[in-house]
Amino acid sequence: MRVIETVAGVREAVGKERGEGKRVGLVPTMGALHVGHEALIARSVAECDVTVVSIFVNPIQFNQREDFERYPRELGQDVATCNRVGAAIVFAPAHEEMYPRPLDTYVEPGKVAEHLCGPFRPGHFRGVATVVCKLFHAVEADRAYFGEKDAQQLAVIQRMVSDLNMAVEIVPVATVREHDGLAMSSRNARLGEAERRAAPALYAGLREALERLKSGEREAGRVKEAALAVIGREALARVEYLDVVDAASMQPVDQVAGPVRVAVAAWLGGVRLIDNVGFSECPSNISG
Amino acid sequence: MRVIETVAGVREAVGKERGEGKRVGLVPTMGALHVGHEALIARSVAECDVTVVSIFVNPIQFNQREDFERYPRELGQDVATCNRVGAAIVFAPAHEEMYPRPLDTYVEPGKVAEHLCGPFRPGHFRGVATVVCKLFHAVEADRAYFGEKDAQQLAVIQRMVSDLNMAVEIVPVATVREHDGLAMSSRNARLGEAERRAAPALYAGLREALERLKSGEREAGRVKEAALAVIGREALARVEYLDVVDAASMQPVDQVAGPVRVAVAAWLGGVRLIDNVGFSECPSNISG
Repeated sequence: MRVIETVAGVREAVGKERGEGKRVGLVPTMGALHVGHEALIARSVAECDVTVVSIFVNPIQFNQREDFERYPRELGQDVATCNRVGAAIVFAPAHEEMYPRPLDTYVEPGKVAEHLCGPFRPGHFRGVATVVCKLFHAVEADRAYFGEKDAQQLAVIQRMVSDLNMAVEIVPVATVREHDGLAMSSRNARLGEAERRAAPALYAGLREALERLKSGEREAGRVKEAALAVIGREALARVEYLDVVDAASMQPVDQVAGPVRVAVAAWLGGVRLIDNVGFSECPSNISG
Repeated sequence: MRVIETVAGVREAVGKERGEGKRVGLVPTMGALHVGHEALIARSVAECDVTVVSIFVNPIQFNQREDFERYPRELGQDVATCNRVGAAIVFAPAHEEMYPRPLDTYVEPGKVAEHLCGPFRPGHFRGVATVVCKLFHAVEADRAYFGEKDAQQLAVIQRMVSDLNMAVEIVPVATVREHDGLAMSSRNARLGEAERRAAPALYAGLREALERLKSGEREAGRVKEAALAVIGREALARVEYLDVVDAASMQPVDQVAGPVRVAVAAWLGGVRLIDNVGFSECPSNISG
């Protein structure tokens, strides 16, 4: 496995593989790799000839400087993880390689970024879309793998790829959870003991929502109410939003007709967690 | 020569050529091809193995519906021109192929789009950057050719390519002019007889600016004054802006130190024309 630090270097390495007819998979990450990331990498390794994992803590997607500074950085461990799971290349550029001067051009998502996390994290999805666009240009992969845990991020990127005619295929990968249901996240490590015990309430609420939907409830308001009642039993969880949105457009729905996601963000102490579950009339589309 | 109407079709055709080691050049146009476009195509034909000319009148870069509707469309003639000058592929998508649904994601240029035409054409450069980004993804060319006549458009695209790590090389091509100095433009055909006679005043003013710069004048204010005095002799030309800007950032300068462009926009009757000249201490960088 190779660790490459420059855009020119990774472009050349990937171009050579593709020139030999190899299928290339990209797993964009911010490092601090956990079992959720491993699932993404393993999926790419299974489906592609060459897997590239990018590791870059992207400053322009953090709307709070402190969150950016506190974000865990463990490149040595991450490289070992990538190697163990079967990646061929780690692309780990320095800040100066990705942003040699302040950006003047951004990729700006529209309505898809307006709800859920959008209002609470100004500029976040613009930062995500822009850096993912840059990574797609640096690493010209056939496929790119994203976790369903960040459902709005996934929708923003799918919409970007479609709107801008990008040739890469986006592969969503199901959320990996702890045995008590808490979705894997690099931020979980920052939870205090009590908050960690409280955190599974989010998924418990989402499961309640899913049960109501499976039982035939189609009023989004009632689904939300039921989920919030479950989360509300846990005093330490302060819900920021909980909503039922169209699975592709991320627009809130009143009545559940097509595929939807029930998404939640909540604070546990000073740590903000998000989670979601998908629901569709067609059982094969259910995920969570 | 082939005419291709779909993104998938042109991607496949270009991918095949590149797979065989061919160098591909792209000339993005809105059709109504004139001698200026022919210079772009000829340059690509000289430098690349395969030249693709895209012809698409892009609605999202017109800030006036009427201007979009009036924009000349002559696909038959344009295809003949491309064939004659040596293009291998014309990519001529229908509106529905480029915009199957309303866009939600845009490429948003920043400061580079704030001056000159920016304030007078709200949304124009966002529309240009977005469609060129889409074309670069549909036609994965090694090089793309743009006229210096649209200097701010060129700067917006160069900045986009740099900011977003796009692999394509942007090649600027010098402005082609009528024998009286009027820069070639598809809009020239809309000039009335008197306005057509008046139109060379723009370039006359720019040449005056260039003379002052060559004579050692470094105060942008005096350079502008001299240019405006020349254009002012022609009563039919109503100047919208005339400015001296940094050649890369398109920011106005007070003192000329590095490479600059002197750029003008003016109305002749109901037709808006733009033109510019470049100046640098290093003579080889002078163009116009």
